[in-house]
Amino acid sequence: MANWRAVLSVSVLVSSGALVQKPLLADEGMWTFDNFPAAALKAQHGATVDMAWLDRVRLATVRLSGCTGSFVSKDGLILTNHHCVATCLDQLSTKEDNLLEKGVLVRDRGQERRCPTQIADVLVASENVTDKLSAAVKGLGEKAANDARKQTLTRFEQTCEEASKRERGGPFKCEAVSLYNGGQHFIYKYKRYTDIRMVFAPEANIAAFGGDPDNFQYPRWCLDMSVMRAYENGKPVATPNYLKVNFAGPSAGDVVFVSGHPGSTDRLLTVSQLLEQRNVDLPDWLLRNSELRGRLLQFGKADAEAERIVSDSLQGLENSIKVRRKQLDALLDDRLMERKRTDEADLRARVGANAELKSRTGTAWADIERALTVERSMYFPYTQLEAAAAFNSRLFRMARSLIRGTAEREKPNDQRLREYVDARLPRLEQQLAAEVPFYPQLDIATLAFSLERMRELLGPDHPTVRQLLTKDSPDSLARRLINESKLHDAAVRTALWKGGSSAVAKSTDPMIVLARMLDPEARALRKRYEDEVEAPMNVAEERIAAARFAVFGTSVYPDATFTLRLNFGTVQGWKENGADVQPFTRLSKAFERSTGAEPFLIPASWEASKSQLDMNTPFNLSTNSDIVGGNSGSALINVKGEIVGLMFDGNIHSISGAYWFDTEKNRAVAVHPAIMREGLTKVYKAQALLNELQGK
Amino acid sequence: MANWRAVLSVSVLVSSGALVQKPLLADEGMWTFDNFPAAALKAQHGATVDMAWLDRVRLATVRLSGCTGSFVSKDGLILTNHHCVATCLDQLSTKEDNLLEKGVLVRDRGQERRCPTQIADVLVASENVTDKLSAAVKGLGEKAANDARKQTLTRFEQTCEEASKRERGGPFKCEAVSLYNGGQHFIYKYKRYTDIRMVFAPEANIAAFGGDPDNFQYPRWCLDMSVMRAYENGKPVATPNYLKVNFAGPSAGDVVFVSGHPGSTDRLLTVSQLLEQRNVDLPDWLLRNSELRGRLLQFGKADAEAERIVSDSLQGLENSIKVRRKQLDALLDDRLMERKRTDEADLRARVGANAELKSRTGTAWADIERALTVERSMYFPYTQLEAAAAFNSRLFRMARSLIRGTAEREKPNDQRLREYVDARLPRLEQQLAAEVPFYPQLDIATLAFSLERMRELLGPDHPTVRQLLTKDSPDSLARRLINESKLHDAAVRTALWKGGSSAVAKSTDPMIVLARMLDPEARALRKRYEDEVEAPMNVAEERIAAARFAVFGTSVYPDATFTLRLNFGTVQGWKENGADVQPFTRLSKAFERSTGAEPFLIPASWEASKSQLDMNTPFNLSTNSDIVGGNSGSALINVKGEIVGLMFDGNIHSISGAYWFDTEKNRAVAVHPAIMREGLTKVYKAQALLNELQGK
Repeated sequence: MANWRAVLSVSVLVSSGALVQKPLLADEGMWTFDNFPAAALKAQHGATVDMAWLDRVRLATVRLSGCTGSFVSKDGLILTNHHCVATCLDQLSTKEDNLLEKGVLVRDRGQERRCPTQIADVLVASENVTDKLSAAVKGLGEKAANDARKQTLTRFEQTCEEASKRERGGPFKCEAVSLYNGGQHFIYKYKRYTDIRMVFAPEANIAAFGGDPDNFQYPRWCLDMSVMRAYENGKPVATPNYLKVNFAGPSAGDVVFVSGHPGSTDRLLTVSQLLEQRNVDLPDWLLRNSELRGRLLQFGKADAEAERIVSDSLQGLENSIKVRRKQLDALLDDRLMERKRTDEADLRARVGANAELKSRTGTAWADIERALTVERSMYFPYTQLEAAAAFNSRLFRMARSLIRGTAEREKPNDQRLREYVDARLPRLEQQLAAEVPFYPQLDIATLAFSLERMRELLGPDHPTVRQLLTKDSPDSLARRLINESKLHDAAVRTALWKGGSSAVAKSTDPMIVLARMLDPEARALRKRYEDEVEAPMNVAEERIAAARFAVFGTSVYPDATFTLRLNFGTVQGWKENGADVQPFTRLSKAFERSTGAEPFLIPASWEASKSQLDMNTPFNLSTNSDIVGGNSGSALINVKGEIVGLMFDGNIHSISGAYWFDTEKNRAVAVHPAIMREGLTKVYKAQALLNELQGK
Repeated sequence: MANWRAVLSVSVLVSSGALVQKPLLADEGMWTFDNFPAAALKAQHGATVDMAWLDRVRLATVRLSGCTGSFVSKDGLILTNHHCVATCLDQLSTKEDNLLEKGVLVRDRGQERRCPTQIADVLVASENVTDKLSAAVKGLGEKAANDARKQTLTRFEQTCEEASKRERGGPFKCEAVSLYNGGQHFIYKYKRYTDIRMVFAPEANIAAFGGDPDNFQYPRWCLDMSVMRAYENGKPVATPNYLKVNFAGPSAGDVVFVSGHPGSTDRLLTVSQLLEQRNVDLPDWLLRNSELRGRLLQFGKADAEAERIVSDSLQGLENSIKVRRKQLDALLDDRLMERKRTDEADLRARVGANAELKSRTGTAWADIERALTVERSMYFPYTQLEAAAAFNSRLFRMARSLIRGTAEREKPNDQRLREYVDARLPRLEQQLAAEVPFYPQLDIATLAFSLERMRELLGPDHPTVRQLLTKDSPDSLARRLINESKLHDAAVRTALWKGGSSAVAKSTDPMIVLARMLDPEARALRKRYEDEVEAPMNVAEERIAAARFAVFGTSVYPDATFTLRLNFGTVQGWKENGADVQPFTRLSKAFERSTGAEPFLIPASWEASKSQLDMNTPFNLSTNSDIVGGNSGSALINVKGEIVGLMFDGNIHSISGAYWFDTEKNRAVAVHPAIMREGLTKVYKAQALLNELQGK
């Protein structure tokens, strides 16, 4: 395992016709820390960051469940978004004490409550294992290579974790990371914290002022912040590598950085893969989930309690719908597809002009199209039964984890499905053991919905559909399964987990029985998918990645993979329909926009403090930072390494960032630190927290 | 006005590379009766139908609200689908007496109850007014021509209706009909019946066995039939031109005809118009309505009564979703779009090769693209505010009809919006005066949903959104409007209608107030749409239609426009994934497929009669007839002019029929007459009705 510094090298960003439309001046790119384009930063912005800066920022950046956060005090305080802790707030709420609605401020450190399923990872080192992996699969056919690749990565992870037990600061979590669509493979080593406690969250009505209507919009007025604290052995963690908040915030034009974990982009996909998303994946997902949105919204109209229990699911769903809706629009945009075709033709022409490269790349593009044809032929069975879209139920997901987890656990580590290798089991155990509220009515509603769509999409004569819905309607089956299953009880889950596959095999819990019955067919679909779709796709993608490296070097950045990246940009607005959108918003306008009704309702605490507030306080700000979902909660950092904002969203144009970076219009949106200070001081009277944030 | 026979001419179907993929042998085409390709029928199938046959079939075919039916006895009996009378059954139902669920059989003619909003039209004559209309708009600019065209058609309709009062069998309804996307204009003259009464409908569980999962599927087992009777002056109408049912049904390979009113196809659209549907219209519609589906399904889960009141709306919605979903798939199919591009390029090349034609056609294709750009720029305001997608409420629709109808009525007939010209007012008055059940909770749910989407699609800062949702949420506004409005009362509506625009102006009914407030903006959007989208589009479409006539003559058929058409084909199945799908299904299999739960629940009446039933009775059948929605309820007719089936659906491939006719896979689905007889005889013991159907 190489030390982090050993693999860090500073590359130069050169113009690349194939991947960045404009040379050099675009602030595009989600760079790994070991390939950060420091020279380009210098050339474009006259700014410099050194190795100490990079190390400090990296070690202060934490990966949360689906989000990013930053250490902001020496005692393990983590700053992130409110929407990144919504699940925790939901888990800690009751009918009588709705933390999502009311917010939370823990003034006594001893009273900070643990978020049952939250984790925080810090990247401490990484090793490039591309060559070792290539050696391990050399000469194998594509199916065998696909299996061997997984086995090898599992062994790399295992070796890394075992060695880490003897390392300073260890043990560490080790995870295989594939970059450039399989062009590079790394083992990333994380320090993991599993005891993360809630410190502060404002009311949802100010954190998400404007709700779904304003989501992905700018100008904006959201105090989308929250604060948690990492603990170890019951004590706050010492975090010397933290970032200070500069509450004055940045000025327009300032150079700013975002360090975080962008979740996923598809900028390196082939045209055929993009068309598959446009024609198959996105329409199917969007239509199913638009219906689910309708069901959940109507579910929440029954009464206040129904509204409360559905709100966290609904918020996530509406966000995903907006993202995918705009992704579909992006792929339906002829300009984008034309550009992708041109870029692909250009790369293929360069490959074709080089006999050796041509021979190495082979029929990669055609191979991908063939794999996609297989994928399409099994699309509904696979997504419904193996990806389990047909069983949209928390209890079902637990049942499957128990069945597969106990079965896989008994195999040698490198022979297991990858999600059940030793390195992943502690996280799974945490989730199975977590005591969190369960709402049977909601689980019945989502399961009934998904069973009904399974029947539509697989057809009423599909054998599994016939088996499940012979004497049952989707509603009656869902009701029986959820009402009779005991898997909502953490003790029952833990007992089954400890009892292993024999206990699971003997269980008569109806959800276990269902998941057990489905497992052979689902596993067969997965095996076929791995062998006939994934295996050829991986080989072809690796060949294309290799061809791209041969032509462009690492002057291109890898697609986002929810791993640590750093980018740079400046504070700026953009032009919309010819008019300037300013990069800062002010508090006064939030009050002007208030309608007195959700989601445009200013909470009572802010109304009560109104006369003390400086209405000119900057609220949100926009930058041209190249970020996507997963960057939520990332600090916006200035050249001095201070936090000058808290990323929480992008503008509507940023969603096309899944496929390309629109330099003219793609903007990221952050909470301005001045509004944090204004709120903490005058609204929440949280002087102790503010002092800690100010290093006092 | 020309007599029907005078304009009837028999043309020859010749091969046309641009519109029919295969020459001559395809049974493609929705032909008008005056351009029926009798020679092609003779050549392809050796069959002949004469003028008497055509006249009899035409006069026995009735147009219902959105469907087709046929006279099947001399006393005005109309045979159509169950799903074509669902709205009537819903209107005649109460919480205690659910006719949709239970079915209905009226044994005493005096007890037949009127369907409050049903009508039945018989086409008695038509006149080609293309040249007269061209003369009226000659030399005008495109906006002026668009206005003048509407005015002229209104005058033609008015003249026709006035003259018809003195004609034998009159008065008649006269309607302008545009064929070939404006390439031909006709005035169609209908005998209209407005007193249509319910005679027989089976239970929904047998009529729609398989429900939405089986909709557009085949093999199939649906007794999708119903019988109504037309009355005039309180007495059954004498209908000497009726069709006899041949209960033996057809054999595989038999030549069969479908006479009916296909609703709408888009086979003659330009590529740019198809792309607009693919990229904008269909995704927007589908996503909005998938959510609505979810809301309605969840609404119906509250209790049995909620399920009942939502069922008719839901059935229509689910049908529309399935249609549009498959239309989107068709447009995402590269083969289809490639074919459309090729056909268009071919036509444009032929036009370009002829100087005179080239000059007459001008920049028609580019003009359409320009009009589409304008349409796209105003898409959401237009669809939300003028097309009123934002106000999904029966009471809102009534309010708008009252406001606009009373205002327009005071203008000269030819200066009105076309939907309020004299010829249309009786139908509107029938609808306003109809006493039908109203369910406020359902109207609140649909209105709240649409207001919420309005805010999403127009944005929270749109002035109208701000105006409506400043101190209100979508829910609270919808509740107040629906609960406080009195427009659910037919007497209130009638009083406002009679009071005219001054009564409407003075009304404080909150729904009237809302619709009044919105009207100026909505009308302005409509005017802009008519002037800047419709006007140039019409001119360009007419030019393309003229070019197509010049190149291909009338060897092509016009797109469907919910006007009378006749086609021919044969009884046949098709190949699906290499396996033969047989053209007939049998009763036994319906029982085998029963699950005991809706929508696969065989009703108790059929279970009780099971031992008497001949399980080998043919149930449904498939043909290659070229039909679409609107043809529902059409008779399937043999060469002798006998009814040998009752069309009610197509297979899943038939949905792409909106854009092209897939001769290999597009199949229509009919109820076999044998199952009608089996059910009427043994299950429903409806001997008197059966006797009437048998002409006894």
